[in-house]
Amino acid sequence: MKNNPKLTLVGAGPGDPDLISIKGAKALATADAVLYDALTHPDLLNYAPKNAPKVFVGKRVGQHSFKQEEINQMIVDHALNYGHVVRLKGGDPFVFGRGQEEIEHVEAFNIPTEVIPGISSSVGVPGLQKIPVTRRDDSESFWVITGTTKTRELSRDLALAAQSTATVIVLMGTRKLGQIMETYRNLNRGELPVAIIQNGSLSNEKVVLGTVDTIEQVAAENNIGAPAIVVLGEVVKHHPEFNHAFVQTNYLQQ
Amino acid sequence: MKNNPKLTLVGAGPGDPDLISIKGAKALATADAVLYDALTHPDLLNYAPKNAPKVFVGKRVGQHSFKQEEINQMIVDHALNYGHVVRLKGGDPFVFGRGQEEIEHVEAFNIPTEVIPGISSSVGVPGLQKIPVTRRDDSESFWVITGTTKTRELSRDLALAAQSTATVIVLMGTRKLGQIMETYRNLNRGELPVAIIQNGSLSNEKVVLGTVDTIEQVAAENNIGAPAIVVLGEVVKHHPEFNHAFVQTNYLQQ
Repeated sequence: MKNNPKLTLVGAGPGDPDLISIKGAKALATADAVLYDALTHPDLLNYAPKNAPKVFVGKRVGQHSFKQEEINQMIVDHALNYGHVVRLKGGDPFVFGRGQEEIEHVEAFNIPTEVIPGISSSVGVPGLQKIPVTRRDDSESFWVITGTTKTRELSRDLALAAQSTATVIVLMGTRKLGQIMETYRNLNRGELPVAIIQNGSLSNEKVVLGTVDTIEQVAAENNIGAPAIVVLGEVVKHHPEFNHAFVQTNYLQQ
Repeated sequence: MKNNPKLTLVGAGPGDPDLISIKGAKALATADAVLYDALTHPDLLNYAPKNAPKVFVGKRVGQHSFKQEEINQMIVDHALNYGHVVRLKGGDPFVFGRGQEEIEHVEAFNIPTEVIPGISSSVGVPGLQKIPVTRRDDSESFWVITGTTKTRELSRDLALAAQSTATVIVLMGTRKLGQIMETYRNLNRGELPVAIIQNGSLSNEKVVLGTVDTIEQVAAENNIGAPAIVVLGEVVKHHPEFNHAFVQTNYLQQ
């Protein structure tokens, strides 16, 4: 057994490798092994020592994807065999990242753990597009929901969120777009501004703007797909192209 | 007038200077002037060139504090006189940071703007304490609210949030602690776990744990005050000291 097994959970941020924190980059520099996800940028692995193994544990189309239980055990195995494991996760490790399950499993082996937060896509991706998740007069809160719950149903929390002043940000929500918009339409909020941002912070980023009533069509016309986030709220009108979008009836920035 | 006036809004993260993004640090390195808030760490100014003016525009007890309109105009003045202004803000610039108002004002002068997001305290501070804002089986969403709205009332969104499975994070909420807990007690949620974290990510960080029914007393006994965040939700029980706290009836980590 290697001396000093340890796990550091590091949030890599939304995609652009420069959006990792300095603390996260420093943790990578002291890694004896790195386990990374599909949504973390490959350039980030350059912060880790050359001889440290770097293991991909994410999901890619057509390839075997690891179950959470397998990842949990791989972290333990690598910590015991190599020492300091950095587990690099997209966004923030605790925002729908199942990071807590990894912590819990590893601590059961008496291996110490540390968490280094990351910029969550939920806040950072709209921000990069100049959509503020909060804005005086427009919203007093923001609510972050996943479109993909454990039961594969849309969270019932959305019906409460849709009654509030909150900016609502749905992660992994493009497949539930119809249901999300229906929830808002049922509350007579068809004119509420909506943005969908795919591949946020990366060079292939795509943005579409519309309203609850129009966004499904705009998204379909522009082939918007995962990974993407959906932002619903008056704050969306602060996007620099929002008014322009309504002249054109749809808008695509790429 | 200086060539190339520009504004970059940079999120400094929750407090620890290493929690700024690499992109944020790079922006500071190209600053011709820096305007910074009270909650940004002074070490961050070292990333900026020595000869660039660094101007404090935050609020400190007993000192004159700038109005938002004054800050907006100072950004324009500095951009026109010096060039690239970095506006360094605690957390993320768009999470109750009034960043959008600064962007709007500056763009009215045809000065280009850019946003570099930061780690919001709302997610990062609980995360550093190993409280996950989301956790399968415990929460399907998280909701971030300010305790201090424009009208100085507690946001009515809280009553909706308290009915959901959401982890609720209240920023700037310590003065409204009684009202927040009353909202939850009225929904028979007196046993819901609660954490309050003061000075998150800094060496003088303080954490208290309890429930809706007990947290006010625990916070008072330990002199918890601003700046602090309040976290309400089942996820709080994942804090390593949570069970221990209930043996002691109150818990303080400093």
